[in-house]
Amino acid sequence: MRQAGRYLPEYRALRQKADGFLDLCLNPELAAEVTLQPVRRFDVDAAILFSDILVVPLALGREVAFIEGEGPRLDSIDEASIDALDRAQVSRRLQPVFETVALVRQRLDQGKTLIGFCGAPWTVATYMIGGRGTSDQATARLFAAMQPAAMQRLVDVLVAASVDYLVGQIRAGADVVQIFDTWAGVLDEEGFQRWSVVPTAEIVRQVKDAEPEARIVGFVKGAGLRAEQYVEASGVDGIAVDWTVPLAFARDRLQPRAAVQGNLDPIILVAGGDALDRAVDRILAALAPGRFIFNLGHGIVPETPVAHVERLVARVRGWTG
Amino acid sequence: MRQAGRYLPEYRALRQKADGFLDLCLNPELAAEVTLQPVRRFDVDAAILFSDILVVPLALGREVAFIEGEGPRLDSIDEASIDALDRAQVSRRLQPVFETVALVRQRLDQGKTLIGFCGAPWTVATYMIGGRGTSDQATARLFAAMQPAAMQRLVDVLVAASVDYLVGQIRAGADVVQIFDTWAGVLDEEGFQRWSVVPTAEIVRQVKDAEPEARIVGFVKGAGLRAEQYVEASGVDGIAVDWTVPLAFARDRLQPRAAVQGNLDPIILVAGGDALDRAVDRILAALAPGRFIFNLGHGIVPETPVAHVERLVARVRGWTG
Repeated sequence: MRQAGRYLPEYRALRQKADGFLDLCLNPELAAEVTLQPVRRFDVDAAILFSDILVVPLALGREVAFIEGEGPRLDSIDEASIDALDRAQVSRRLQPVFETVALVRQRLDQGKTLIGFCGAPWTVATYMIGGRGTSDQATARLFAAMQPAAMQRLVDVLVAASVDYLVGQIRAGADVVQIFDTWAGVLDEEGFQRWSVVPTAEIVRQVKDAEPEARIVGFVKGAGLRAEQYVEASGVDGIAVDWTVPLAFARDRLQPRAAVQGNLDPIILVAGGDALDRAVDRILAALAPGRFIFNLGHGIVPETPVAHVERLVARVRGWTG
Repeated sequence: MRQAGRYLPEYRALRQKADGFLDLCLNPELAAEVTLQPVRRFDVDAAILFSDILVVPLALGREVAFIEGEGPRLDSIDEASIDALDRAQVSRRLQPVFETVALVRQRLDQGKTLIGFCGAPWTVATYMIGGRGTSDQATARLFAAMQPAAMQRLVDVLVAASVDYLVGQIRAGADVVQIFDTWAGVLDEEGFQRWSVVPTAEIVRQVKDAEPEARIVGFVKGAGLRAEQYVEASGVDGIAVDWTVPLAFARDRLQPRAAVQGNLDPIILVAGGDALDRAVDRILAALAPGRFIFNLGHGIVPETPVAHVERLVARVRGWTG
């Protein structure tokens, strides 16, 4: 998950040098530095590319803006605009991200992992259709129900663009890539299969065709028990789970099928203290004996005290089972 | 779930007669009429009390307001205010709701069911602490992590007030009562057990002590597979599930333990057409052979065309298996 951000004073300082959030994402020198900040400060095992899932619609020619304190705003797409999307320029337009990956890989210790990512087609589509994030992405759900053929064409374009994007990141030096389906959890049973599982499986297949050694982690926020179906059908090597997923389920049903990544509630990291220690210990006790990547269950929040992250890292490193 | 509302022209007409949303909830004559509107129009099998879960904090002496187009606003509670909460006046202050129930029961066909409800303690607490609804109720989650003892006292007061409230509804004529835990899904594993399951189990036990024939349905939105744990531990007679719960899971894991209520995506009802018919048929095929109450997976939304509700009711009534 996102590990750089406003909770870090060095991020806030560097953020001033960029002309807005998207400029920061697309400036290789600045984005590489932001990517490396948490590794330098906390000596974590992996760097997570600093970017945003909405650079893909941008590379497809859509308007994307980030409003301070409000989040992303896109020009809502309609059926005609879907047919006009042109993926020919995607790799060229995302070249700055590939340069960021290459710079980070140069500057990062060889023993540390560099993780790239993209948004899953459904999640990216919800922003392209609704124009913003809401509590349940109802606009995109309605679009999918009323215009399933247009939705399919949009998802197909996003599958192709995502494959180009992930393969580009891997060739630039990413060791692992994640596919974030932040909004998969709001889909009903049929929608989850059609718009989340199947497109992700297609991305995994095509990325591994191009780069057989690729390691891919899927994240389906709010999917609960459906994570099992997702892991089985998508072919991901790892599954990132949010904090609402019961640990026994993650251990018994997911870990035999994939590495599990997760799942501390980012709010518990804000709280700190005994609540943090106990939550970390529960996660480690359940999952550390198997294939496991300790992580938050979603991105770190701006209110997080740096001292709490230090306490977390020390506790995970000190774990002896 | 809520079945009256702005999608009905007769609701919009009656809404004008009240001085705000809370006034409508607490005016027995108007609230009874709103409750009966969907039954009259669609001849559905049950009337759902028109009220709001936030009348309980109001009855506990807190300030509650509804801002048109924005939702509820409460004065955020702190630890000292929690200790000052007085449940002695709850039953007296909620007398208008009991009068509404009695009026509806008088006017409703004897063959139709009247369903009352309250918010679950955790969900009501999230509004009392955060002052409003957000996408993840982070303010309340942080409060629970940092001040668990104060949170426990707040939840204890809400358990007691909810028992008074539900028993009052049952004695006024409600045939079934629901406990809505709309925000249970954002809790981590420990929080889900402590703040959702245990308080609900306590309400169920105390309501059944007072009214042994009481029938209680629990709703835990976004809980996914955790609905099973909730049903087993809480003692509810029925479990309402949202549209993200897989039907095979509801049939195999929930229906043997409780009646299942659900779970059409309200957005599919807005979409209508073939998407609606197919979704309804899938639900009926999976769940109608067992103990089942057809329902939406959450409240009906204002954009819903009345003709789509008619189509839905006809399809459910016409189901032959």
